[in-house]
Amino acid sequence: MPTFPQSIAIVGSGALGSYYGAKLARQGADVRFLMRADLEAVRESGLRVREADGEWELKPVQAFGSTAKIGPVDLVLIGLKTTANAELERLIPPLLHENTALLTLQNGLGNEEFLAERWGVERVLGGLCFVCLNRVEPGVIEHYGHGTLSIGEFQRRPMERTRAIGEMFNAAGIETHVVENLVTERWRKLVWNIPFNGLSIATGGRTTDELLADAGLQAQVRALMAETIAGAAALGHAIPADFIDFQIERTLPMGPYKPSSMIDWQHGRAVEVESIWGEAWRQATAAGAKVPRLELLYQLLRQLTAPR
Amino acid sequence: MPTFPQSIAIVGSGALGSYYGAKLARQGADVRFLMRADLEAVRESGLRVREADGEWELKPVQAFGSTAKIGPVDLVLIGLKTTANAELERLIPPLLHENTALLTLQNGLGNEEFLAERWGVERVLGGLCFVCLNRVEPGVIEHYGHGTLSIGEFQRRPMERTRAIGEMFNAAGIETHVVENLVTERWRKLVWNIPFNGLSIATGGRTTDELLADAGLQAQVRALMAETIAGAAALGHAIPADFIDFQIERTLPMGPYKPSSMIDWQHGRAVEVESIWGEAWRQATAAGAKVPRLELLYQLLRQLTAPR
Repeated sequence: MPTFPQSIAIVGSGALGSYYGAKLARQGADVRFLMRADLEAVRESGLRVREADGEWELKPVQAFGSTAKIGPVDLVLIGLKTTANAELERLIPPLLHENTALLTLQNGLGNEEFLAERWGVERVLGGLCFVCLNRVEPGVIEHYGHGTLSIGEFQRRPMERTRAIGEMFNAAGIETHVVENLVTERWRKLVWNIPFNGLSIATGGRTTDELLADAGLQAQVRALMAETIAGAAALGHAIPADFIDFQIERTLPMGPYKPSSMIDWQHGRAVEVESIWGEAWRQATAAGAKVPRLELLYQLLRQLTAPR
Repeated sequence: MPTFPQSIAIVGSGALGSYYGAKLARQGADVRFLMRADLEAVRESGLRVREADGEWELKPVQAFGSTAKIGPVDLVLIGLKTTANAELERLIPPLLHENTALLTLQNGLGNEEFLAERWGVERVLGGLCFVCLNRVEPGVIEHYGHGTLSIGEFQRRPMERTRAIGEMFNAAGIETHVVENLVTERWRKLVWNIPFNGLSIATGGRTTDELLADAGLQAQVRALMAETIAGAAALGHAIPADFIDFQIERTLPMGPYKPSSMIDWQHGRAVEVESIWGEAWRQATAAGAKVPRLELLYQLLRQLTAPR
């Protein structure tokens, strides 16, 4: 085991936090899970993971009902939905010692800023997850594909701890890349998420193949991608224009794929409207980019996902 | 009675056609209604109109099951939904003599062109209706307010027949204005219809007061109005920018108003997506205007109103 991190807390033990945490713990890491609804089930039966190469379990699991009981750790993995970010105000402090690092695996923009403002920029790292997971019942996670992680420091280049965390994930079987500029990577991911996750909801439930099969809709997908790239460019993140064709090409073979936000929406769960569309629109607009479709889509999604 | 028109056919005897036709017939005009679902009920019981100053009936009604039975007339009032325009191909020919005029009271753009291409530009007039009506049961029309009509010639200035038709409507108690440029008026009406009718559907059913109460949504209403004005300008129709404030101000006191397209959509009826948003987007784009929000809204509405 590397000297850092010696101890890890998982905050937000949904499918994402449970999966990555279980993989790390299985490899011998000291991983402590903050659990709510699934606490008793996991204490009794452990965590069960079903993936392509078989099913396995982690048992016993260090599962806790509060971060006070977890105590200070070297690294906190944050897998909470961004719509619940306000809860971090009370969840994070008990986990901190002087050098605790905070790695947010959350979607969209603004999450590193949220952590940096409260607990110091030097603690913060971010990660982008390219993985398909589902928590099918308490303590049971199904892994459908992918799993790659891109991690980076917030507002600085990779350093020793970044590489140590990356090595730890790779050793646990999670292909992880250390990236030079985390925010550029976040914008590259938004080039896909903004049109596909957004239009799948705004059209009342069209899957990615339906969004691409209709010429008028595919034109909107492409136009939203171009606006996202223009927003990124205004903020100093260069994404080449042919990235649009690349994203369309890689999406075509995915078939009737349901973007994660659409699944959340269809199940009546909170949709991460602010961290994906809201922050992208605000930051792009503040930087002088013209993003009219993004603005309209954001405002529609605010309404469509609001509790009525 | 004026010498023109001596005989009138109503094609599309929904609430609009029935109301205007009944008003004209009540004043002594020879009005012949094409009826489908309500034919038997109207033949038996006549047309009943409920309005602010009382309830009245027209009985007997000249109601027919086909335009062949109606025969040639001087004037055809077209109140059909634009989504049913293809039916006009067979409905119109039996009504024509050499000088038959065709007055479309339909929504949006492209309806005069549709008639002109088939039966000659010199026959065609258009009208804009500012009226709130509902067909509450077969042969029974409720009138909730307004009723003003603006009529004009297609692609030429008003002439003798235009004024004769206007006088006929005015004599029947329908306040009617003859306009110099019909298409400019259609674009002015679209400045309201494009944002309010469109966003009421795209937000999943927000009324006009809700669209204005939310700052982010009102900004989209205003931006769509500005795009519509830019589209009109590119096509040579000057609409002043302060028309936006005027439209917002006149909408605020309307309270929880449901735009007509939203009512159609909520009842599962066809929505006039092509004549309102589709044609506006196509014409504005062809003229070189930038209308990105209109384009996205149009594409979303195509999907949201499509039968699934």
